[in-house]
Amino acid sequence: MSSVVDIAELSRRADFPAIPDGWHYLDTAATAQKPQAVIDAIAQAYGRDYATVHRGVYRRSADMTIAYEAARQRVARFLNARSADEVVFVRGATEAINLVAQSWGVATLKPGDRVLLSQLEHHSNIVPWQLIQERTGIEIDVCPLTADGRIDLDAAEAMLTERHKLVAFAHVSNVLGSVLDARRATELAHRVGAKILIDGCQAVPRIGADVAAIGCDFYVFSGHKLYGPTGIGVLWAKAELLYAMPPYQGGGSMIDRVTFGRTTWAPAPQRFEAGTPNIVGALGLHAAIDYVESIGLPFIHAHEAALVRKARAALSGINSVRLFGPEDSAGIVSFAIEGVHPHDIGTILDEEGVAIRAGHHCAQPLMELLDVPATARASFGIYNDDDDVAALARGIERVTRIFG
Amino acid sequence: MSSVVDIAELSRRADFPAIPDGWHYLDTAATAQKPQAVIDAIAQAYGRDYATVHRGVYRRSADMTIAYEAARQRVARFLNARSADEVVFVRGATEAINLVAQSWGVATLKPGDRVLLSQLEHHSNIVPWQLIQERTGIEIDVCPLTADGRIDLDAAEAMLTERHKLVAFAHVSNVLGSVLDARRATELAHRVGAKILIDGCQAVPRIGADVAAIGCDFYVFSGHKLYGPTGIGVLWAKAELLYAMPPYQGGGSMIDRVTFGRTTWAPAPQRFEAGTPNIVGALGLHAAIDYVESIGLPFIHAHEAALVRKARAALSGINSVRLFGPEDSAGIVSFAIEGVHPHDIGTILDEEGVAIRAGHHCAQPLMELLDVPATARASFGIYNDDDDVAALARGIERVTRIFG
Repeated sequence: MSSVVDIAELSRRADFPAIPDGWHYLDTAATAQKPQAVIDAIAQAYGRDYATVHRGVYRRSADMTIAYEAARQRVARFLNARSADEVVFVRGATEAINLVAQSWGVATLKPGDRVLLSQLEHHSNIVPWQLIQERTGIEIDVCPLTADGRIDLDAAEAMLTERHKLVAFAHVSNVLGSVLDARRATELAHRVGAKILIDGCQAVPRIGADVAAIGCDFYVFSGHKLYGPTGIGVLWAKAELLYAMPPYQGGGSMIDRVTFGRTTWAPAPQRFEAGTPNIVGALGLHAAIDYVESIGLPFIHAHEAALVRKARAALSGINSVRLFGPEDSAGIVSFAIEGVHPHDIGTILDEEGVAIRAGHHCAQPLMELLDVPATARASFGIYNDDDDVAALARGIERVTRIFG
Repeated sequence: MSSVVDIAELSRRADFPAIPDGWHYLDTAATAQKPQAVIDAIAQAYGRDYATVHRGVYRRSADMTIAYEAARQRVARFLNARSADEVVFVRGATEAINLVAQSWGVATLKPGDRVLLSQLEHHSNIVPWQLIQERTGIEIDVCPLTADGRIDLDAAEAMLTERHKLVAFAHVSNVLGSVLDARRATELAHRVGAKILIDGCQAVPRIGADVAAIGCDFYVFSGHKLYGPTGIGVLWAKAELLYAMPPYQGGGSMIDRVTFGRTTWAPAPQRFEAGTPNIVGALGLHAAIDYVESIGLPFIHAHEAALVRKARAALSGINSVRLFGPEDSAGIVSFAIEGVHPHDIGTILDEEGVAIRAGHHCAQPLMELLDVPATARASFGIYNDDDDVAALARGIERVTRIFG
């Protein structure tokens, strides 16, 4: 398989020092490799500019505070948010959803209220709602999928009632790569008076997100899937919601005044950032967004879509392979091979230098629907190219020979 | 002021690239600077070894899982814990205390139960307990301090009753540097059947902690104050407590099996680590502990105690200076200058290249007791030496001249 010019030009493998020649990293949906620009930003933050934020009266700390808040502003621009005050730094998308559930959810949801999730949600967008069921008395409904693995918005429209106070959907499925029509989902939620939370983990590195255009209420993502550091992520929420939400964790920086008798809270977003934040994580995320936008999400999406098409074409030519998800998946291909456990696929591919993920992908309800215990999943990133697709296809052919 | 040999030998400024010549960093109690070994460990994790943990079937991910779990084992050894299963990775000490409050606290504490805190606690060990007061019905008692600024354990002994279910004390005060007799505090708590949580943020980088010798139930600290990365910290809890605690956040990795009908949990510590953890943060913390133990906490404590003695001696010679805290403070000196706001002290010192903190140090109840709105605080670390003390003293003399 020979490279075509546009894709060869786009592949940025040289920017990624942790991808050696001959290694085919196809697990970007789990976590993305880091460009040198991000590693350098982290090393510089610790090795030249380091200080705490918000609390120092000396120049270094004031400068670090400016850098930390600049990262918040960068996230706001990246999401097309109205204000950096709508951006809360958290550990990752999982914490962001838990924060919304435990703060907004517990304060707002009442017995008999309903939350609509979908059959393809990641556990991080299921379990936080289950954890508050006892406290709030909410019921959880599950939106089915279309035959090709999208959240079925016609079904959602039919299911939604005025009892529904929240819809929480993945923007891009981490298993199938299927893309939500986030704007329509938002309109459907708002039509019955529900809020909508969108899990953007797989969307922000693949298609981007414009929260103003979508019109959603909450949007969350993890930095490490966006070519940024581990331990940093984002909760974006509409200002009027965020400002009204009660505290989530208590500690330094989130208070206005503490006494043993009565404590009052700082405004959002500080109210939700108790304790010293992951300062350098935020700076690394800033560098990651700069890197991604220097390439451009339309180019990244086109690049990954082309790789998906080629991978699906190559794998569909192999008899025993079953492909999941839609043809126009955003950078992710899940598949199974008849009679071969996905873990064995992963192990054999590893011997060929091809790193994929095999498992339930933290989406067991989707596995139940697909009627498999697990899938094999190849997911693409900025650094992949046709050679990776070719290596994947060769590896799968070897699997079928071994198990044939 | 000339250096004495033992201290000159111990000062490791050359290991810290972010401390240039002529800059006197005296804000280690807020956050510690990072040795090159930690920066290198982080750069290597992202730039050579990077992959996700727990979920990959390929070698790189298996290796990263081993490294992540090795960091957990390193923390367990550092604290003299019985098992790495007693170590939960969190964002920092603040999150650790919130986790204990929201999981153990909400599950265990009943209306009328009492929690004993102290007057010198950091907001991170006050507000989390206030946040669960409404849900649990607990009452909070406040242990007074001795005249020289220690938690008064005789008073604690007199206050504790069988209604007390938890004592939560700082091991070392972040304002005064006073050291708790953690073993006696634990005995007092256990005598009435209460559990004890110890906030070790300022203790682990200064005197270390041996949870087996102390006998406590919960111990928490932040990585960034221990010369490690931001966004990583530790909750240690006795296995029998941790294993019985209900989940705190929901998401990937913390579950056993997820269905929309019923979800079951993974055992501790995974139960408390929902979502992709701060993988590289844990590896950086491992490197930081290795670095600190390569020097040795007894040496670090002796070094910092010597610097505190010299700083207190130098400052007590200046008429208008009021010193807080005990003579044998662990590396921290808080002070005020009559008629000068601490922020002005900080600003003038900054002009002299001396970085201290001025403010309430997230300990407003202690400020009330001291009857000041804020203090100036100089705090020492591995990299400080007599030159830093001399620069501090020169700076304070300049402050007194300006405001004299």
